[in-house]
Amino acid sequence: MQLTGYPGRMERTSFSKWNCSVAQCLEVVGEWWSMLIVRDAFMGIRRFDDFQRDLGISRNILNQRLNHLVEFGVLSKEPYCERPLRYQYRLTEKGRDLWPVLTAIRQWGDTYQAPDGPPVELVHKGCGHTSTAVMHCSVCDEPIEAGDMKVAPGPGYKGDSILPVLRAVSRS
Amino acid sequence: MQLTGYPGRMERTSFSKWNCSVAQCLEVVGEWWSMLIVRDAFMGIRRFDDFQRDLGISRNILNQRLNHLVEFGVLSKEPYCERPLRYQYRLTEKGRDLWPVLTAIRQWGDTYQAPDGPPVELVHKGCGHTSTAVMHCSVCDEPIEAGDMKVAPGPGYKGDSILPVLRAVSRS
Repeated sequence: MQLTGYPGRMERTSFSKWNCSVAQCLEVVGEWWSMLIVRDAFMGIRRFDDFQRDLGISRNILNQRLNHLVEFGVLSKEPYCERPLRYQYRLTEKGRDLWPVLTAIRQWGDTYQAPDGPPVELVHKGCGHTSTAVMHCSVCDEPIEAGDMKVAPGPGYKGDSILPVLRAVSRS
Repeated sequence: MQLTGYPGRMERTSFSKWNCSVAQCLEVVGEWWSMLIVRDAFMGIRRFDDFQRDLGISRNILNQRLNHLVEFGVLSKEPYCERPLRYQYRLTEKGRDLWPVLTAIRQWGDTYQAPDGPPVELVHKGCGHTSTAVMHCSVCDEPIEAGDMKVAPGPGYKGDSILPVLRAVSRS
């Protein structure tokens, strides 16, 4: 897999102190490689060498990323071989719950960045058709889009946090 | 907004050559700051100084990230002041279509990384209730989860690409 270089390096910032669930999710899986590791795990890849072969990533960075995902409970790490000691990585429930994130990312890529059409499609076993995921309201079951929704402070809202919430609330 | 440092720098890799829509989406919005800029844009922020104040990001990095999002058609850039020349940034249709990505990211953060509860909630204007987004099948309208879906090669699938698709297909 041929990788092209990217000009420049970027300072990594931790979002851990931000009172924002977008930032908190990115703190866990917002690193370049993390969502591709999660993608591979959904596809059934378990072993270090298989991740490494599929992603073409350096062993050092892959090791860092896997440890980070284990530390945050997205992957579990268990030995599958004693001599030499080898581990396999599996999605935890927390990791499997990233499926909507992965799916939304993939579908946007299919729509806007796949000139030859989607490389991969999902078939809904229930109805047997090639399907895309559409977001529906958890209460009334109707399909929802950005314009259908209004932002409101939640139980974890702290007055000192994000400016845009204040603005959005004041506009509503 | 206090940011903590993160040990080490990470080499940036371009995914532009990968035949994978997850990688292609990450190529556009996978950078640390990009989804937070998109979040702010959804909340109504338009101007450089407002992004800068809200994110606490350096002007140099913010400028790079905004230009990247403009280059890939996620944001449009138009002058709002002639002297001095000042621009505002707005989500394009391509940018607004990131709403499911942003929503899935936020909801996962709410579930797993928000010990005091969601800082922000969305109210569905249609039914008037605080709501979460649930993925449904575009064909039969039933709710779907990872285990309900089977991977298949799509029209853009190229034999030389991703290993896990082959594996998943061979397992199904």
